[in-house]
Amino acid sequence: MIPFPDSRLAAQIAFVVEIDRLKTVLRQTLLTDSSRRENDAEHSWHIATMAFLLAEYADRTVEIGRVARMLLIHDIVEIDAGDTFIHDEAGHEDKEERERKAAARLFGLLPADQAGEYAALWQEYEARETADSRFADALDRLQPLLHNFETEGATWKPFGVTRAQVERLTPRIEAGSKRLGAYARALVDEAVARGYLAP
Amino acid sequence: MIPFPDSRLAAQIAFVVEIDRLKTVLRQTLLTDSSRRENDAEHSWHIATMAFLLAEYADRTVEIGRVARMLLIHDIVEIDAGDTFIHDEAGHEDKEERERKAAARLFGLLPADQAGEYAALWQEYEARETADSRFADALDRLQPLLHNFETEGATWKPFGVTRAQVERLTPRIEAGSKRLGAYARALVDEAVARGYLAP
Repeated sequence: MIPFPDSRLAAQIAFVVEIDRLKTVLRQTLLTDSSRRENDAEHSWHIATMAFLLAEYADRTVEIGRVARMLLIHDIVEIDAGDTFIHDEAGHEDKEERERKAAARLFGLLPADQAGEYAALWQEYEARETADSRFADALDRLQPLLHNFETEGATWKPFGVTRAQVERLTPRIEAGSKRLGAYARALVDEAVARGYLAP
Repeated sequence: MIPFPDSRLAAQIAFVVEIDRLKTVLRQTLLTDSSRRENDAEHSWHIATMAFLLAEYADRTVEIGRVARMLLIHDIVEIDAGDTFIHDEAGHEDKEERERKAAARLFGLLPADQAGEYAALWQEYEARETADSRFADALDRLQPLLHNFETEGATWKPFGVTRAQVERLTPRIEAGSKRLGAYARALVDEAVARGYLAP
């Protein structure tokens, strides 16, 4: 990046360039047309857009711009830590430590005030205790269900994912939105009925 | 998509699934690692994230969550209309008509209130008259400069883009942020000095 006589802006631009790598972190989820695996950046775009579109279904009062901001940065740690498949139990053992280090390095590229602000926003997302983070997490859980349904279980089938495994995550949708949770349950019923998901 | 006894939510989910196709609309810009062309969805993620990170540089008062929402949906019309390269003058002749039709079809998938709201938000972005849309446009113009600089002119060189062509767009960055405009001008100077961009 070019030398520029403004170290604050230079640090922000360095971060903007660094996070471009999120476009190369692949998830297990396929695009709905099954053409390829989805990457973290486009996934983050999708759920941040969903936040605005589906804001009316949040059960508690949320600051929707803040929910979107949280979703835009929620996967940035995966630039260093990689994507851990939600049903990969072994991968989850050291996930927290890997992601904590990644957050320190990546958000640490920003000026100190923003580094603190973004690290805190990411931690809030991870903790799932506030209204904003619960609604954000609900969308992050709902979107791959839609993709799996559209692709007739493209991620579920090769990993042998069962209905019980998917249903362990449904309460996280319900924790942000009862309505979206009900939708997810209906989607799972239909996925099993159609043979996209093992009973 | 499954039948669900709530036509409002069903319409919203149909839109969420339809816009997944934005991930398959390719831009001329390469990722900063030059590995491949960028798609519209990940580009939209990048600039919406930049909106929050660089909000302090907006010259006029902006509602930054609204700027981000605008950026998340600003390219959705390209699902039908395709991406028109900024320096492709012939392609721009019928761009407006193609995009108007695309907006009618795509936002028309939403419930009527949201269809109107999102079409208006997109039109506001396109008109570049409000503080929010000018700052949004500044970021949309700045990001490909960063990518071209990082890839040593990967899009500029094959299309024979000159400094004068790039500088015709700099006022659009300045219209949203004098500071980011100054950064862009310095970046262009350096790109020419390094031979990434034709003088």
